[in-house]
Amino acid sequence: MSHRVVIVGGGFGGLEAARTLKDAPVQVTVIDRRNFHLFQPLLYQVATGGLSPANIAAPLRAILKRQKNTGVLLGEVTGIDTARRDVHTPEGPVPYDSLIVATGVRHQYFGHPEWEQFAPGLKTIEDATAIRRRVLMAFEAAERETDPDAVRAWLTFVVIGGGPTGVEMAGAIAEIARFTLRGNFRRIDPTQARVVLVERLDRVLPSYPAGLSRSAQRSLEEFGVELHLKRSVLDIAADRVTLSHADDETATDTIPTHTVVWAAGVQGSPLGRQLAEATGAELDRFGRVIVNPDLTLPGHPEIFVIGDLANFGHQTGEPLPGVAQVAIQQGRYAARLIRGRLKGETSAAAPKPFRYTDLGSMATIGRAAAVADLRFVRLTGFLGWLSWLFVHLMRLVYFQNRILVFAQWAWSYFTRNRAARLITGYAEQPEGLEVEPAAPVTAAVERERVA
Amino acid sequence: MSHRVVIVGGGFGGLEAARTLKDAPVQVTVIDRRNFHLFQPLLYQVATGGLSPANIAAPLRAILKRQKNTGVLLGEVTGIDTARRDVHTPEGPVPYDSLIVATGVRHQYFGHPEWEQFAPGLKTIEDATAIRRRVLMAFEAAERETDPDAVRAWLTFVVIGGGPTGVEMAGAIAEIARFTLRGNFRRIDPTQARVVLVERLDRVLPSYPAGLSRSAQRSLEEFGVELHLKRSVLDIAADRVTLSHADDETATDTIPTHTVVWAAGVQGSPLGRQLAEATGAELDRFGRVIVNPDLTLPGHPEIFVIGDLANFGHQTGEPLPGVAQVAIQQGRYAARLIRGRLKGETSAAAPKPFRYTDLGSMATIGRAAAVADLRFVRLTGFLGWLSWLFVHLMRLVYFQNRILVFAQWAWSYFTRNRAARLITGYAEQPEGLEVEPAAPVTAAVERERVA
Repeated sequence: MSHRVVIVGGGFGGLEAARTLKDAPVQVTVIDRRNFHLFQPLLYQVATGGLSPANIAAPLRAILKRQKNTGVLLGEVTGIDTARRDVHTPEGPVPYDSLIVATGVRHQYFGHPEWEQFAPGLKTIEDATAIRRRVLMAFEAAERETDPDAVRAWLTFVVIGGGPTGVEMAGAIAEIARFTLRGNFRRIDPTQARVVLVERLDRVLPSYPAGLSRSAQRSLEEFGVELHLKRSVLDIAADRVTLSHADDETATDTIPTHTVVWAAGVQGSPLGRQLAEATGAELDRFGRVIVNPDLTLPGHPEIFVIGDLANFGHQTGEPLPGVAQVAIQQGRYAARLIRGRLKGETSAAAPKPFRYTDLGSMATIGRAAAVADLRFVRLTGFLGWLSWLFVHLMRLVYFQNRILVFAQWAWSYFTRNRAARLITGYAEQPEGLEVEPAAPVTAAVERERVA
Repeated sequence: MSHRVVIVGGGFGGLEAARTLKDAPVQVTVIDRRNFHLFQPLLYQVATGGLSPANIAAPLRAILKRQKNTGVLLGEVTGIDTARRDVHTPEGPVPYDSLIVATGVRHQYFGHPEWEQFAPGLKTIEDATAIRRRVLMAFEAAERETDPDAVRAWLTFVVIGGGPTGVEMAGAIAEIARFTLRGNFRRIDPTQARVVLVERLDRVLPSYPAGLSRSAQRSLEEFGVELHLKRSVLDIAADRVTLSHADDETATDTIPTHTVVWAAGVQGSPLGRQLAEATGAELDRFGRVIVNPDLTLPGHPEIFVIGDLANFGHQTGEPLPGVAQVAIQQGRYAARLIRGRLKGETSAAAPKPFRYTDLGSMATIGRAAAVADLRFVRLTGFLGWLSWLFVHLMRLVYFQNRILVFAQWAWSYFTRNRAARLITGYAEQPEGLEVEPAAPVTAAVERERVA
């Protein structure tokens, strides 16, 4: 009976682990509640009509089709019995010899879960389509309004959080308003829409080099985005957002709006807490699992936690950033460690610890302008943007439709076309916008490292 | 104050009417509860992973962007006051001088509305994504089952109705099972799926020439589809379909299945009944409005009913078929009649009656095989299929992404790729599959005429 490896989560980390175990003398089961792998770095493009969900997702079964030692189980993991070594699913327990947990993070509202209904976050395709619906419906509502203040409120969009997602979203909404919807309405002028980006600290992209922050701020301002720095959120309601000012406790602003996007914080998936309780591992304040230098849990060399869910502080003292490259490298490391153990090369006692190789970062800032900091060379402008495009297309490695996506981007780049912004579905307001491909040309900062 | 034309419904008929009124001295308002025009003849491609919704839909605002005398109102028409001459919407009444009603038809269950939950029909994008979800989830469920009978039931697909939609759906499901999903599973063999097509009469496509029926049946059998002719449905439940036999009252079959598609009947939209009650116009048994030779209603020369909702029997004695070409020609006629009246050319009393010009019909039957009956010439095989493709691409006239759709079709034709069959959404079971472009190469019969 061959060694059973169960991988929970089919994201960048889990999928890389599974692929690294190709042809190994193991039996791999990838469990995910979704039937597809999602290219999350481009999710904001779906949320803003840049791409269709199908462009940035690929079915796990198709990706792993030819990997005969690997099966896919569609289902939600409800718990893990670390003593009996099996994973609980609605279809019954799945036993493992080695376990890799890569279930990532969700957004959190800093103790205000009631804000979620007014300010959806952006982690899943459902989040993305919900945000698309809200943004497009806001323009429709404004067109129907007659009271100028009401129109103004419908044409005001507030993005909370100046990290990569927030910067991308704000820039994309501004571009939709200024270019995509121009001339589409008879009463309102969508180009008059107000896009507000709120950041608690004194610059956007605080986790990035100051140079990138400056370029991003410049381009956001060119896009007409209002930057509200050193502000944090006091309250979010159906018709307004209330902000505080970092330097002046008494100064609060209230912005009338019906469309708020949350890009301000994440927390580890619930499975992390369960694992911690079962194994005595520690969680950080974001609910991420603090892992050993070999990505395993204390006293459980057979359990690996990788990707966004893992807090790995053994390299710099700081936890590694929640980016795809970290997850990919960790998935590869965990899989190789398991192979090594089976070959008897690696002693479970003292394996070579995981090291993250940082390959530099890059950012697209507006249409056909980008900054690529590859450490050895710094590309800017159109050249940087082309390299951004190239890197992303190469990254869509699992996607049979890479050429199509490129054609769509090229097409959209010249036409600024986001044509099929369909409002579909039957929610309290129409939901699930299908949106046409467009170029990834909004103020966008790539949150991951160059492969 | 210019003449106000209100068009209810942005389908083929309504949109053609609006475009024919371009530059006319009128003020046009197109009201639709959806923000997009749908290319319905290819909807089965969305339901079966051939195309993404965005490929066959285009926003009404984008289509009518440059038509300055025309506005779009997103909303549901709740009623029509034919005396005061205004249309009721949730945003208040919209007054008209001329009214064009083109709200089409929905499917009906012959007095068994309870069947709908088990057997969705195919009229909207939501219908299409719901059917995709059910079909793909059935394979997932089968993979998880152990009992052979249960697996068999999950791998059995029943399509009710042998018209164009039914033939297209059955062929497409068979192709997904035999080609798209081959090798994707570890326990089940999707190519063993059983696809059943049920038709009440003695041949599929009863409304088409017998030659087309024969070709369609031949290709369906090549695809491994089981034809059950001269059968009608007695009952549909969550786990089975019960059929009667036309020739033998006592013979009933019960087919264990969890996946049923309804393609058996349509009825006029509710607005038709309201109009009939308000104006005294008559409805046929399908709830379609019986119209005057000039498409107006008795005593109401200012109200036109066109497209699938209209029953126009003045040409052949039979109602014209519910196909796009009829709707398009009627929309053009109604708009020209309104223009003529304004110019004083046409007397509302005795206008030249509407005549439908039948341009022949065509059918795609399987991959790269088709029959085109253009009356003057009959094309078959690959040539016929190319002409089918050509006609459809030319028909996607409002769609900026025509070239992309072609690229996707070409790509898919050679790869049989339906790669991004994503299961998304949060219904009782996952919903809203995003599916990757594929060639329109399933046993498919075009329900409309060649432009």
